Amino acid sequence: MPPSLHAAVLTVSDSAFQGRRRDVSGPAVAEVLQSHGWTVVHTQIVADDMAVIAATFRELIGRRVEAIFSTGGTGISPRDVTPDATRKVITRELPGLPEQMRRTGSQSTPTAMLSRAVAGVAGNTIIINLPGSPQGAVDSLKSILPVLPHALDLIAGRTDHKP
Amino acid sequence: MPPSLHAAVLTVSDSAFQGRRRDVSGPAVAEVLQSHGWTVVHTQIVADDMAVIAATFRELIGRRVEAIFSTGGTGISPRDVTPDATRKVITRELPGLPEQMRRTGSQSTPTAMLSRAVAGVAGNTIIINLPGSPQGAVDSLKSILPVLPHALDLIAGRTDHKP
Amino acid sequence: MPPSLHAAVLTVSDSAFQGRRRDVSGPAVAEVLQSHGWTVVHTQIVADDMAVIAATFRELIGRRVEAIFSTGGTGISPRDVTPDATRKVITRELPGLPEQMRRTGSQSTPTAMLSRAVAGVAGNTIIINLPGSPQGAVDSLKSILPVLPHALDLIAGRTDHKP
Repeated sequence: MPPSLHAAVLTVSDSAFQGRRRDVSGPAVAEVLQSHGWTVVHTQIVADDMAVIAATFRELIGRRVEAIFSTGGTGISPRDVTPDATRKVITRELPGLPEQMRRTGSQSTPTAMLSRAVAGVAGNTIIINLPGSPQGAVDSLKSILPVLPHALDLIAGRTDHKP
Repeated sequence: MPPSLHAAVLTVSDSAFQGRRRDVSGPAVAEVLQSHGWTVVHTQIVADDMAVIAATFRELIGRRVEAIFSTGGTGISPRDVTPDATRKVITRELPGLPEQMRRTGSQSTPTAMLSRAVAGVAGNTIIINLPGSPQGAVDSLKSILPVLPHALDLIAGRTDHKP
Repeated sequence: MPPSLHAAVLTVSDSAFQGRRRDVSGPAVAEVLQSHGWTVVHTQIVADDMAVIAATFRELIGRRVEAIFSTGGTGISPRDVTPDATRKVITRELPGLPEQMRRTGSQSTPTAMLSRAVAGVAGNTIIINLPGSPQGAVDSLKSILPVLPHALDLIAGRTDHKP
């Protein structure tokens, strides 16, 4: 069994940050990760504020977590800025992951195609935007989680190209 | 029944603009919209000219239509510039809508995967590029039309995130 | 039967360039092209070096091949730079082709969704990034090859929009 990968889960939500509602999506994401053998080393709730989100991503990258999963702020209301904050931090975009999440999500929830979610690499860390609804976040996560260990091996240079 | 949404339909085509052929796609798009409860408040035909297309988008946004549907100019011949004009006007891209249109379209018409179509938000207006062929435009429109009322609610801040 | 289209095949791989392993993907891509009626006029192996890849693309565009197919360097390890080199050369991106290749590929190989492959137009030449594994390259190629003759007609202005 491979060594456990380390993840941070970042809930992006004005109302959860202000305590007006309970954060359900963050714990749901953490639970899926743990059940797949990941270690969740950090969870946090931040407001829908681009500078704050980007700064939090940068701090978590500095702690050398292997992946950061955000939930929330991927839509098109004016306060949704998680993808924009993500683009400020990543150096390489991975377009196939949001494509997969939107395609999978829209089979049960057509509005999943409105997601502006982004995924990409910053240093040796992968950042993945998940939607804000608990079900959407969990379904999106499950659709891409199986490829992440291989992706992290490649980023860290631990796997050579196969012939 | 919700209040009717207001749309503009913009046909982008040198030959239709010059009267060398009849515009079939614009009326076909308008008919689909009306049959789904939309009110088409403006239709127009413009040449494949980036500055003209962008200026027309801006004028229609000023009229506060909720969505602008263009048809034509999404391909890869040198005169196809509708996506480029759209990118000059929108402030946020919605990549999932073209993904959905290309995927749906390529099931019956493989060349649909060549579309460079863009969708995005400018102010409170959604702009969506549809392909130029009548069948392609209608099929693409139908594949994304169901999610637009929800999208417009979010843009206008009329819907809070669900818990 | 239409006149044969001319292609170049560019293998991007440090280890193949240095002779540490045999290039299997380049010949596999060339064979698929030939079996579909294309003429492969040039094959070359280069290292995973952004400047070299971009310069090679530019030289091949100057030779007026109709399409350049690269294989390799589309992943996320630090040396994978083929998509970045491609973006330096193309003037118009064709996002639907990588979408199709990732979707098709991920049905048999989930890690195909990690591909950062790009396709686009430079002058009258189409450049298409294929993955580095022989099977991945061949499967990706076959999923988009049927639309390329039409695409090249459009780029060269040989086909007017149908009414």
